[in-house]
Amino acid sequence: MVMSRQDAELAFVREARVGRLATIDSQGFPSVVPFCFALLPGPEPTIVSVLDEKPKRVADGELARVRNIRMHPSVGFVIDRYDEDWSRLAFVQGRGIARMIEAGDPMHSGALAALRDKYPQYRTMMLENRGMIAIAALRLRSWRGDGQPF
Amino acid sequence: MVMSRQDAELAFVREARVGRLATIDSQGFPSVVPFCFALLPGPEPTIVSVLDEKPKRVADGELARVRNIRMHPSVGFVIDRYDEDWSRLAFVQGRGIARMIEAGDPMHSGALAALRDKYPQYRTMMLENRGMIAIAALRLRSWRGDGQPF
Repeated sequence: MVMSRQDAELAFVREARVGRLATIDSQGFPSVVPFCFALLPGPEPTIVSVLDEKPKRVADGELARVRNIRMHPSVGFVIDRYDEDWSRLAFVQGRGIARMIEAGDPMHSGALAALRDKYPQYRTMMLENRGMIAIAALRLRSWRGDGQPF
Repeated sequence: MVMSRQDAELAFVREARVGRLATIDSQGFPSVVPFCFALLPGPEPTIVSVLDEKPKRVADGELARVRNIRMHPSVGFVIDRYDEDWSRLAFVQGRGIARMIEAGDPMHSGALAALRDKYPQYRTMMLENRGMIAIAALRLRSWRGDGQPF
């Protein structure tokens, strides 16, 4: 069985432990943060990330990424592998449209289950009432340091 | 001797092997890529990154990040450490104003020397005629997974 390039890109995204998510702030600067996420499969693959219990300076609704997404739902992200052997570098870059998902949204419990399946760290956190970011309408492109296609 | 928080943030940035840089594309989406860089010290610390010989699909001037910076010099970046022990997570997030530096610019040779000092991979690449991205007017903020200041 041959994987299509898109299947290979989605597999690379799905397996990564961390990515970097960029939103646009109120002053027009891109704002990048590392983020943990799960990829929900299906005909419309969706990336989900929970506003978790890692220490925050502010309440969830005041988080920069939440404010930014409400103002400007176009987001970008990258999932990559760094290696000192630069022929082994690789990344999948993506963009999509983000929205906030509150507890009670039909998508919330499935997304939380996917995140707990991927990250044991989430299994002991109380996340049932936490907001989530869902990124859909994904467009991906990929690159490898050896010049080969994904 | 006590390091100030800003000194600690700059040291973390300086030592990182890879960061992620976000620009804004012509459709208003943030576009994130991994990037290798050096931090030039001084009263106005500057991050420099060369359009190197890693395989590209297009000529340097057509690279998305170059086109984006010419249109929209406000950029963002993040330098972070991922660890499965989330109390060890850390990042320095920054924003700044980017400009392109061509060969012949007074800054070019010093920046290239700094990049070659940091990355042995650059010592055998012909980079004297390559454009560079310089990011100045840096504003940094930092975060640690254990809730402590940097």
